[in-house]
Amino acid sequence: MDGPRPPARPPLPADLAARLAAIVGDRYVVTDANDMAGYLVEWRGLFRGRAAAVVRPGSTREVAEVLAYANREGVAVVPQGGNTSLVGGSIPFERGDEIVLSLTRLDRVREVDPLSDTMTVEAGVTLLRAQQAAESADRLFPLSLASEGACTIGGNLGSNAGGTAVLAYGNARELVLGLEVVLADGRVWNGLGKLRKDNTGYDLRHLFIGSEGTLGVITAAVLKLFPRPRSVVTSFCGVPSPRAALDLLAAAKAHVGSAVTTFELIPRFGVDTVVTHMGCRDPLAGRHAWYVLMEWSSPSDPGLQERCETLLAASIEAGTVEDATVAVSLDQRDALWRVREALSEAQGFEGGSIKHDISLPVARVPEFIEEVNEALSRLVPGCRPMPFGHLGDGNLHFNVTQPVGADKAAFLARWGEVNELVHGYVARYGGSISAEHGIGRLKRDLLPRFKDPVAMDLMRALKATLDPNSILNPGKVL
Amino acid sequence: MDGPRPPARPPLPADLAARLAAIVGDRYVVTDANDMAGYLVEWRGLFRGRAAAVVRPGSTREVAEVLAYANREGVAVVPQGGNTSLVGGSIPFERGDEIVLSLTRLDRVREVDPLSDTMTVEAGVTLLRAQQAAESADRLFPLSLASEGACTIGGNLGSNAGGTAVLAYGNARELVLGLEVVLADGRVWNGLGKLRKDNTGYDLRHLFIGSEGTLGVITAAVLKLFPRPRSVVTSFCGVPSPRAALDLLAAAKAHVGSAVTTFELIPRFGVDTVVTHMGCRDPLAGRHAWYVLMEWSSPSDPGLQERCETLLAASIEAGTVEDATVAVSLDQRDALWRVREALSEAQGFEGGSIKHDISLPVARVPEFIEEVNEALSRLVPGCRPMPFGHLGDGNLHFNVTQPVGADKAAFLARWGEVNELVHGYVARYGGSISAEHGIGRLKRDLLPRFKDPVAMDLMRALKATLDPNSILNPGKVL
Repeated sequence: MDGPRPPARPPLPADLAARLAAIVGDRYVVTDANDMAGYLVEWRGLFRGRAAAVVRPGSTREVAEVLAYANREGVAVVPQGGNTSLVGGSIPFERGDEIVLSLTRLDRVREVDPLSDTMTVEAGVTLLRAQQAAESADRLFPLSLASEGACTIGGNLGSNAGGTAVLAYGNARELVLGLEVVLADGRVWNGLGKLRKDNTGYDLRHLFIGSEGTLGVITAAVLKLFPRPRSVVTSFCGVPSPRAALDLLAAAKAHVGSAVTTFELIPRFGVDTVVTHMGCRDPLAGRHAWYVLMEWSSPSDPGLQERCETLLAASIEAGTVEDATVAVSLDQRDALWRVREALSEAQGFEGGSIKHDISLPVARVPEFIEEVNEALSRLVPGCRPMPFGHLGDGNLHFNVTQPVGADKAAFLARWGEVNELVHGYVARYGGSISAEHGIGRLKRDLLPRFKDPVAMDLMRALKATLDPNSILNPGKVL
Repeated sequence: MDGPRPPARPPLPADLAARLAAIVGDRYVVTDANDMAGYLVEWRGLFRGRAAAVVRPGSTREVAEVLAYANREGVAVVPQGGNTSLVGGSIPFERGDEIVLSLTRLDRVREVDPLSDTMTVEAGVTLLRAQQAAESADRLFPLSLASEGACTIGGNLGSNAGGTAVLAYGNARELVLGLEVVLADGRVWNGLGKLRKDNTGYDLRHLFIGSEGTLGVITAAVLKLFPRPRSVVTSFCGVPSPRAALDLLAAAKAHVGSAVTTFELIPRFGVDTVVTHMGCRDPLAGRHAWYVLMEWSSPSDPGLQERCETLLAASIEAGTVEDATVAVSLDQRDALWRVREALSEAQGFEGGSIKHDISLPVARVPEFIEEVNEALSRLVPGCRPMPFGHLGDGNLHFNVTQPVGADKAAFLARWGEVNELVHGYVARYGGSISAEHGIGRLKRDLLPRFKDPVAMDLMRALKATLDPNSILNPGKVL
């Protein structure tokens, strides 16, 4: 895929690998093409890069020494965690004069403190291991993503990951109390505080969280823990429209507030695809234009299921909901979640899909879907829009599947044109062209067209201040 | 009170008042000493400043023009909202060469959007009016402070205010979706998005929130709204120790999670003072060493009170709680809250108090209180420590009241010495010397001793980048 070009750089030092090896040890500097391959390819094959070396430090100190060296020599550094970025943020450019800084050896859970509800973990800990560490202390770390077995906390924070639990618990940035960050010049900011309140000066955490490795390298974090939800009520509702879905959301929040932990919108086309291609059973007997996967959870609330059923009955009475089912076993719950989780894979069986990761003010989602669907069918007659996802946060994965029987390549060739249409409406509705995946390389050139110009200026000023030699993931984001 | 000196500045322009009047209109430039007085005095009389003028713009555009002018001329600007800062952040220095930028005329609630659960308000809207605007739309804006009738949203965000609802809803910064900010040179960043998820580049909101007017002037914000809690259960518990209080907190969170919206610790000495001086009734029959004011709330949960009573009964059984009462009327609830809210005023009747606004990792609070109380009685025999406050966030207002019958002035003369002792322990315990009040002028000189030196360097670099002429609240924070 095309994308921005990297900025020009000084020539690489001839003794680069040796100097890196002196810091991290021979075996942790990878220069063999085969051994490097896994670090250089985006997992869907969208980007393929080259690198002078992959360096794998084993401690914060080694990260600091690598960066100090790179900064002195002007060597560009691409920080990488689990390499599951969806925007090419963790892949070097093709020119081959960058080094990949893999953080996966920083994989210690340094501490779990259940009484303070905190956990201190290193950047290379996978999200799954972090979740498990919390669970071992009878706590919940709520961040949850499709790639959780592979993605790392460092990457999650670097990209301010979202996922399915944002409605109740917030984005990744909301889950962080403290950070340890290595700056471009190798200085280490030790901000690993476990404090819920600390008004001693500027908030530096949020500068690095979501900066996609362009302002500093996160090496460890203090994360917030929560009580484990033991009462979970999962329902699947057929609704006549996205507006009805929003009414259900408002009613559910008025009923149980932040106990509404999942609220996912799915169009009929989505349910069709998972039934046809993924072996899912249609959870409801009749056909409905739209569906909502709704989950309520609470640490322990014996009355939660009854209250959910009462609300659903009232919503059916009011016409907001046409039909609904509530899972009464773990198997049933898994089956309902499977409908949501299989959507992306199922779409592949219907041909090419042009994808968008957008967000909107929640109240405007219904109008947006209606208007964009119409505009899309004028632009590509017969195309099948598939807006689904986290309605509770206003975040839609607005995918557009090719017309039945159309030529896949010809359809995908219209990627830019379709993006242009969708993003144009996003801007008009006060939305975001990247709700949770970030900018990376994929959307770098788009960004200045959609972002407030003063915000762009501020971002450039911050980059120049924190990384004056532009060695940190150059050509990404900005 | 002594404090840092302001940096040297160029001489004031002779036509300053006229130039400001040309922007905001004659009547909104105040130069008369009597008319300025209210803007120049800290409400407890701790700081008294002077100013060349108080300027009161009526729009974001006027704020921008004032700053552009001040930046060109090198005139220092002290942004001010309700002037309720507890650290002298909103008061100019004594030299008289600064102007106060009062934001109180920016007082429009621009929009309330209950379906998106957002509200867009200008900086000068008081917290109380913001709460009321939310309530009119059947929503909750949860920020709540003693000064809510006077303090403004701009000041709340500039200082990242805390208060009594942080446990469930977070600090002020957690309640913000979007911001409008005027930069030092008069450029306006329009970041008034209503999005729950937006990963398009660096997070600029959190740079300005909590920067105490030193990096930019917040003129408007999009705030998060929540369902109104209709089920509220307020209890008052006698506990043997802070450790028992923490055990109760853990049990309550395991039971109902974020429905624990208040968890305030009060020592027996505190209850004595409000009973003796403020006409409060002791809520419990017997005497206990410590007390907890605990509130659970939920949008609507008919079973909440019963569940709270069940937990309290089990806690009494387990010895965590010695006695407890649950309010069964609004009057009873008000009476329990009054015990907590009257603490600060009641202390005044016991003579001088040396104050600290500190936070600690939650789990370490009991050990900290024990150790500091012992050290304090060695340093000032007979002094009466009064650590109270937001135990759920690890935030204590650790006040130290003079010994009975001691000379007030002589005791208060030891302010620095007592601060030194308490802050020393705070540092050892990984705590913060300013949990929710900020740094302002009061703690500016303390900060470098307690803050990570790399963090201090980063803060200075950010200040130089965003305010190169140092016109924004110079001499505060940094």
